Amino acid sequence: MTEEAIGRARAGDARALARLVSLVENGSPELRPVMKALAPLTGGARVIGLTGAPGVGKSTVTAALVGAYRERDLRVGVLAVDPTSPFSGGALLGDRVRMQDHATDPEVFIRSMASRGHLGGLSAATPQALRVLDAAGFGAVLIETVGVGQAEVEVASLADTTLVLAAPGMGDAVQAAKAGILEIGDIFVVNKRDHPGAQETVRDLRTMIAMARRGEQDWKPPIVTTIATAGDGIADLTAAIDAHWSWLEASGERDRRRRARAREEVAALALATLRQRMGGLPGDSRLDSLAARVAAGELDPYSAADELVAAASGG
Amino acid sequence: MTEEAIGRARAGDARALARLVSLVENGSPELRPVMKALAPLTGGARVIGLTGAPGVGKSTVTAALVGAYRERDLRVGVLAVDPTSPFSGGALLGDRVRMQDHATDPEVFIRSMASRGHLGGLSAATPQALRVLDAAGFGAVLIETVGVGQAEVEVASLADTTLVLAAPGMGDAVQAAKAGILEIGDIFVVNKRDHPGAQETVRDLRTMIAMARRGEQDWKPPIVTTIATAGDGIADLTAAIDAHWSWLEASGERDRRRRARAREEVAALALATLRQRMGGLPGDSRLDSLAARVAAGELDPYSAADELVAAASGG
Repeated sequence: MTEEAIGRARAGDARALARLVSLVENGSPELRPVMKALAPLTGGARVIGLTGAPGVGKSTVTAALVGAYRERDLRVGVLAVDPTSPFSGGALLGDRVRMQDHATDPEVFIRSMASRGHLGGLSAATPQALRVLDAAGFGAVLIETVGVGQAEVEVASLADTTLVLAAPGMGDAVQAAKAGILEIGDIFVVNKRDHPGAQETVRDLRTMIAMARRGEQDWKPPIVTTIATAGDGIADLTAAIDAHWSWLEASGERDRRRRARAREEVAALALATLRQRMGGLPGDSRLDSLAARVAAGELDPYSAADELVAAASGG
Repeated sequence: MTEEAIGRARAGDARALARLVSLVENGSPELRPVMKALAPLTGGARVIGLTGAPGVGKSTVTAALVGAYRERDLRVGVLAVDPTSPFSGGALLGDRVRMQDHATDPEVFIRSMASRGHLGGLSAATPQALRVLDAAGFGAVLIETVGVGQAEVEVASLADTTLVLAAPGMGDAVQAAKAGILEIGDIFVVNKRDHPGAQETVRDLRTMIAMARRGEQDWKPPIVTTIATAGDGIADLTAAIDAHWSWLEASGERDRRRRARAREEVAALALATLRQRMGGLPGDSRLDSLAARVAAGELDPYSAADELVAAASGG
């Protein structure tokens, strides 16, 4: 049944694929045999992360890239992660309207990933959904996320190539530098290059990238300007992504990144298991009663954590 | 030695206090006896979180509140958390210049907290630094953070009262709604009320708060307008914070929030311990070698995580 579903997903059956991704999202117990079966099939997808502040045009650029990779006859997956609202339960796909061009293409798979829980950071399901698409034979998977900070960093840790998007007039570029965005960008995209201030944005980015530079043999992040709504600059962007891909392979950086990705993934799953044990021990109230004692000043949090770890380890 | 340092910090010795906070930041082994000794002394501080996008004037509002609470003769602590750059190592205090008025006041303690590691989210040290200030007799502790998303949520989980700051022309309010900011704000502050667009910002916020409303007996978040650089509206703001404090006590919500805070704190410390064990087992390379096998497609991440958990639990 598992083998069959995987076989159908690989053959292009969109419903079989959607079911596998749902399995991942729901943390279903059937997940484990599926992930076992998928493991040897992974590694073929090129993973591209897109990030940037709200309003820079992430969804438009994503849609344009989907179009470009479809022209190369690749199957393309899009995972849109909204890490900003752990409360709302559902994820928001920035501007879903932009994706409608591709919604009926059976070779394009689009899914909004909810962000679950906040200690786990990005949805734990995202790396697993990525594995499903990878194993199903998707040549390119685009992971789109919004926000500054943590989310970008996690997206960067999943991606082979991370695009950092900016747009003119979206606030001062120094904030981007503060936000650690310079460190994660493999390629910078200044979208809406026809808007006033585009040249300043490019100049500011160039200055900051120059200041942040490290060794001689490091990748030098290019800045690509686009008008994604019109498709302008998208060929330049895919060329830059290809150049980065070649560099990743030649430098050995690709394998290094993928091992680091696996490391994060395994550690996150292990922590999730342990966290579940801590909250879900027999009686279920150990953490609550420890917390009540800490809140009352009867116990310090370190001693409480020790008790919890001892209980979880025995679980 | 521990008892003596705590005694001196409570008596107002700024250097003793700074050393205790450094202990927390460095995760020093001396930390545990200190936290044990502090536990019964905690619970007296009123904890106020301030959050909002870069540029809304968080540091100015923080500085104005410090002044207001100093007039009440409270000792005031400020913890500035910059969660946006796990890479830079050091934290940035938004606009340190604003704090200089208070820098020489021995009854004011100001510290920038670095954000460490990314699976742990906000600096694990922040809740512990808060405990130190609380136990040392600080009547008010202001926790300032930048960014959208995760960071705010975590600040809200630490605070008795969370202020969400906005400013005219800082981008559209719908983004704030997406970012889950409506759910965490106990009081909304529209700073720079003399700037164009202030009335629209207030109106947008009011509409969204009205839409997000829950039960009848719930707290209704007020909107306070300020010009923090001139001190305008700060009295209204402290009055709103006082009103929220009274509601917290009357409704029992304060105790509920503080137990929830302790719960997060204990769970985070327990996870940190387990995470450390996973990365730091004898040989130290278990996670690395599991990750290499996952990256090579020889092993799925769930099976790898199981191996890791088994090893960490035995550790």
